[in-house]
Amino acid sequence: MTSNNDRQDELQQIVDFCRLIDKEKFVQRRTYLSDGERLENDAEHAWHMAMMALLLSDYSNEKVDQFRVVSILLIHDLVEVYAGDTFAYDVEGMKTQRERELAAADRLFSQLPENLGQKIRSLWDEFEEWETPEAKFAHALDNFQPLLLQNASGGRAWREGERKLSEVLRRNAKSAEGSQELWEYARQNFIQAEIDRGNLIDDVNGKE
Amino acid sequence: MTSNNDRQDELQQIVDFCRLIDKEKFVQRRTYLSDGERLENDAEHAWHMAMMALLLSDYSNEKVDQFRVVSILLIHDLVEVYAGDTFAYDVEGMKTQRERELAAADRLFSQLPENLGQKIRSLWDEFEEWETPEAKFAHALDNFQPLLLQNASGGRAWREGERKLSEVLRRNAKSAEGSQELWEYARQNFIQAEIDRGNLIDDVNGKE
Repeated sequence: MTSNNDRQDELQQIVDFCRLIDKEKFVQRRTYLSDGERLENDAEHAWHMAMMALLLSDYSNEKVDQFRVVSILLIHDLVEVYAGDTFAYDVEGMKTQRERELAAADRLFSQLPENLGQKIRSLWDEFEEWETPEAKFAHALDNFQPLLLQNASGGRAWREGERKLSEVLRRNAKSAEGSQELWEYARQNFIQAEIDRGNLIDDVNGKE
Repeated sequence: MTSNNDRQDELQQIVDFCRLIDKEKFVQRRTYLSDGERLENDAEHAWHMAMMALLLSDYSNEKVDQFRVVSILLIHDLVEVYAGDTFAYDVEGMKTQRERELAAADRLFSQLPENLGQKIRSLWDEFEEWETPEAKFAHALDNFQPLLLQNASGGRAWREGERKLSEVLRRNAKSAEGSQELWEYARQNFIQAEIDRGNLIDDVNGKE
């Protein structure tokens, strides 16, 4: 049984954690918001993801526990308050990403009361392991949302980065495992549209 | 039964909605983030709220369906993409808030496929009606989080706004209905702390 003092200590730990994760609002991503002007931050991204899990779960390949998908997406970038954002097209950064994020996870989640820390950590591990239907669908959304914003912002980040179709396909290699329908929608309406608008280089279909 | 065409139309409606609500990232609140420099926006606030529902549900007065609290908090400010943020200490704005937000809700949620629109709308109505344990706890968190940020940002917004304790108590009149423990924590650690630091005017206890 938890004594009153223990309970107050636990509350203090959780409140400190809530204060710490405010930093997620300062971790900048490489995707422009729909105004095409400002870059998105991790907290905005996580909120948008969680909303999309509420709205789009019918489009998962497999039936999912919606609350677990939402929870996974809310916490999926938390480690970046220590590890920073790793740009999905930064090949060098990607090599050390796993190691840096594991260290960040150990440091971060151990600051919570033990049971709660384990619960949040297991959601993060589940996302990273990419095996359950919930993790696969969460990843499908995590890939779908930047494609939606890319299209909504006029393809600016792709144009500026001289992004190639082969890179986008590599990043999305497993998107269809979570949602065949969302991946097909994205190919037609976001990816092909940006090729047609000249913002994405088609180095795959010999039209470069 | 839904035909294939209907299903594609529904997906298009939901994707359009996901694009529309990106605007929530541009609705500015009056609370400074923990850096004491930048004001929070609605999407960041909603993410922080949903995280706090994951972390703090044990502190609700009544047992709550955690997923419903998280869902309510994710969507609780969506209507502001049309109605804008109403500052909690803006007495004139508060008078027309309900009317403006009801019109925004009608306009916004009708853009979703009917069943989904009704589901999201019912979460928003539940929050507004402030009656279920989930709505009461969601409000308790919605009040707790700006107090946490107020304290984390050195009380800047209160100092600049020459805020008075009576105003803060009025805004929090029902906070304890959702969580007695969080309200007591906030009184001691956020509100009293800012009075002691000279950022909040104590016009209640004769120490003005």
